[in-house]
Amino acid sequence: MLDNTHDAARRSWVSSANAHDDFPIQNLPLGIFSRADGARRAGVAIGDFILDLTRLAEAGLIDAEAADAVVATGDGTLNGLFALGNAPRRSLRQQLFALLEESSRDRARVEPLLHAAKDCKLHMPAVIGDYTDFYAGIHHALNVGRLFRPENPLLPNYKYVPIGYHGRTSSIDISGKGIVRPNGQRKRPDEIDPTFGPCRNLDYELELGFWIGTGNDLGKPINIAQAADHIAGISLLNDWSARDVQAWEYQPLGPFLAKNFATTISPWVVTAEALAPFRAAQLARPDGDPAPLPYLYDSKDQAAGAFDILMEAFLVPSGAEQGDAHRLSCGSSISMYWTPGQLVAHHTSGGCNLQPGDLLGSGTLSGETPDSRGSLLEITNGGRVPFQLASGQSRVFLEDGDTVIYRGHCRRDGFASIGFGECRGTVLPAP
Amino acid sequence: MLDNTHDAARRSWVSSANAHDDFPIQNLPLGIFSRADGARRAGVAIGDFILDLTRLAEAGLIDAEAADAVVATGDGTLNGLFALGNAPRRSLRQQLFALLEESSRDRARVEPLLHAAKDCKLHMPAVIGDYTDFYAGIHHALNVGRLFRPENPLLPNYKYVPIGYHGRTSSIDISGKGIVRPNGQRKRPDEIDPTFGPCRNLDYELELGFWIGTGNDLGKPINIAQAADHIAGISLLNDWSARDVQAWEYQPLGPFLAKNFATTISPWVVTAEALAPFRAAQLARPDGDPAPLPYLYDSKDQAAGAFDILMEAFLVPSGAEQGDAHRLSCGSSISMYWTPGQLVAHHTSGGCNLQPGDLLGSGTLSGETPDSRGSLLEITNGGRVPFQLASGQSRVFLEDGDTVIYRGHCRRDGFASIGFGECRGTVLPAP
Repeated sequence: MLDNTHDAARRSWVSSANAHDDFPIQNLPLGIFSRADGARRAGVAIGDFILDLTRLAEAGLIDAEAADAVVATGDGTLNGLFALGNAPRRSLRQQLFALLEESSRDRARVEPLLHAAKDCKLHMPAVIGDYTDFYAGIHHALNVGRLFRPENPLLPNYKYVPIGYHGRTSSIDISGKGIVRPNGQRKRPDEIDPTFGPCRNLDYELELGFWIGTGNDLGKPINIAQAADHIAGISLLNDWSARDVQAWEYQPLGPFLAKNFATTISPWVVTAEALAPFRAAQLARPDGDPAPLPYLYDSKDQAAGAFDILMEAFLVPSGAEQGDAHRLSCGSSISMYWTPGQLVAHHTSGGCNLQPGDLLGSGTLSGETPDSRGSLLEITNGGRVPFQLASGQSRVFLEDGDTVIYRGHCRRDGFASIGFGECRGTVLPAP
Repeated sequence: MLDNTHDAARRSWVSSANAHDDFPIQNLPLGIFSRADGARRAGVAIGDFILDLTRLAEAGLIDAEAADAVVATGDGTLNGLFALGNAPRRSLRQQLFALLEESSRDRARVEPLLHAAKDCKLHMPAVIGDYTDFYAGIHHALNVGRLFRPENPLLPNYKYVPIGYHGRTSSIDISGKGIVRPNGQRKRPDEIDPTFGPCRNLDYELELGFWIGTGNDLGKPINIAQAADHIAGISLLNDWSARDVQAWEYQPLGPFLAKNFATTISPWVVTAEALAPFRAAQLARPDGDPAPLPYLYDSKDQAAGAFDILMEAFLVPSGAEQGDAHRLSCGSSISMYWTPGQLVAHHTSGGCNLQPGDLLGSGTLSGETPDSRGSLLEITNGGRVPFQLASGQSRVFLEDGDTVIYRGHCRRDGFASIGFGECRGTVLPAP
């Protein structure tokens, strides 16, 4: 559903928004921020500023429906706004766009409600009731599968089941925090018994995080035809992974301590509305693959496809400056084997209830080419092939002091580019 | 730490409590209840009654420390009370015991604060931030392993790693609710492609649920010497399982839809204080097994062992009366391979943060003998051997209308027996 808010020619009176790398007026992502008083409030990123939504509603600058959406954030989270569904969020977007446009007559009343982003602190956008991590990046599944089963990299269920597992919510935090290297049990093939100590093979995974808007009642699945409407927006997500711990612990019930020490998300929720122009019909499902089972198939959903988001991962090695960032990978999220709607329909197909503010990870989104591999496990061929940095140093896995930064952008001819802001974390030594 | 509240000779002026199967004065489990007005309040089960803790505190019948513990339940959950740690909970127990004892002088003031349990509605005792299910029942692991790998039933990591995985919190509910049979993908060996439809192999798993009291900060593991102090209490737990869905989906990331459609818990939290006499030094770890790695070993914790709780599972077949319940199994929870403290220490060893009200499932607690198998998968030898009911019917897995009931009791010479109350669910047809 494209409208004038997607028009690349429109500009804002917030001059830093025009041609902003992430937050032009066509984006308007939602987040939670605080200023010196510490109170958490909902805001929208516009250029180098954050617009205070609560003050905007108090000033009577938006209509009742949009104001209800803002009032629902009164607890300092976006959960209540997500729970209202798409219509109030769309209405809010329309009115924000009109207020911030170059031609707006309300500039004088809105401008005092902007805060310089650099003076604000960002917070978790929502309380995450449950976090699920999928495995929808087929090139990642193939790359990892080849390391362990070269002759048969994909398991027989992969093209039928949107594989996923439950993750840990308590250790999810926003960009900019330190990531304490986990201790854990690990056993090299040449070791007889496992030992406990700092993870030796610390890795990142480049993912998208889908925020659930309205949920469903227990025992009442969401039909695939409506499933995509339950996605409120998207953030970037780093599923930090302790590969050596994972290899030893994961049989038979899957990853546990290898993942639950930290997950990092970018703090801005880029809404489904902002992303509307960037759906991509081209899925990673080649001709000849099995058709999705009927509960996962809707012609409109399948035709809409995944989102085409250009995702980049950078490494700032310990001791280096941000200007010396090494680009680890660059690829598009169209490599998802399943649409976001299919993830929602599958997740609820057995009756499991999703709730507003739940988070669904995509799984690592590697592309087909070597320069678009979304984890060090893939880049270094299972830790066997180090890569070189400009400084002459090399890396296999992450070292203490290393910083990993993700960026994501949507670019399409005829539309303004929009971005996600940063998703960053720095590795701290194990305790 | 045993004291006069564990003395079997003590009796209550609440006559139904004396020799009560579950809730004598020596138990005093915590829960959340409501009456006609719907307001959720903290209460304690005593015989056939529930004592209203909020009213008790308002009446000035408990001291400031115990009253603070009650005030912390003001949001209608036990999370705040759990967060206070063990001392206020112990203090509350001591004072409740004195008030309810036969010799109490306060009977006239306390009696009006009792509600008949049959007139009250019970609720979830806490908001569960994260739910983890372990696999600590070694006989279950052996029984299941034998079905799939007869020559090598235990995987190499089992005796080193307390195996666990993250579960779904949104679908956890208390005893007495309908369990909607999940639809899901399943594929029999003789089928070429999977199909989607009602689960054919619906099962239960007999478990304990450990409630976390005080938690830990992200990146700050809990030492094994203090780990057991972070368990506030225990409920019974049914980890309903769709075996056919599980078999097809679980590689490589573990169970997902096979488990997340429902988990049932008994609504009363039997506190660590009430359970103190029922620790059992006898763990399922035979001589010759590898010693726990140092981060999992504390001589006091190891000597204290697991809890010795007699756990029973019953089936009331569709159409039958409760009096025709078929006892499926009866065994003790001493078959846990890891102590509750070891589960806590392991869970946090990589830095993962636990929070008050988090729930840890034990995994299925089968005993060594055939009459103590904690799931139909084990009882029917992987679905191959039906069992007979008194009515002449037989079962392999659960049918629509079947009710599964758990009961749990602690019995030890010299101590009053205490119980957990019921954990029950009835299977409803798939949508």
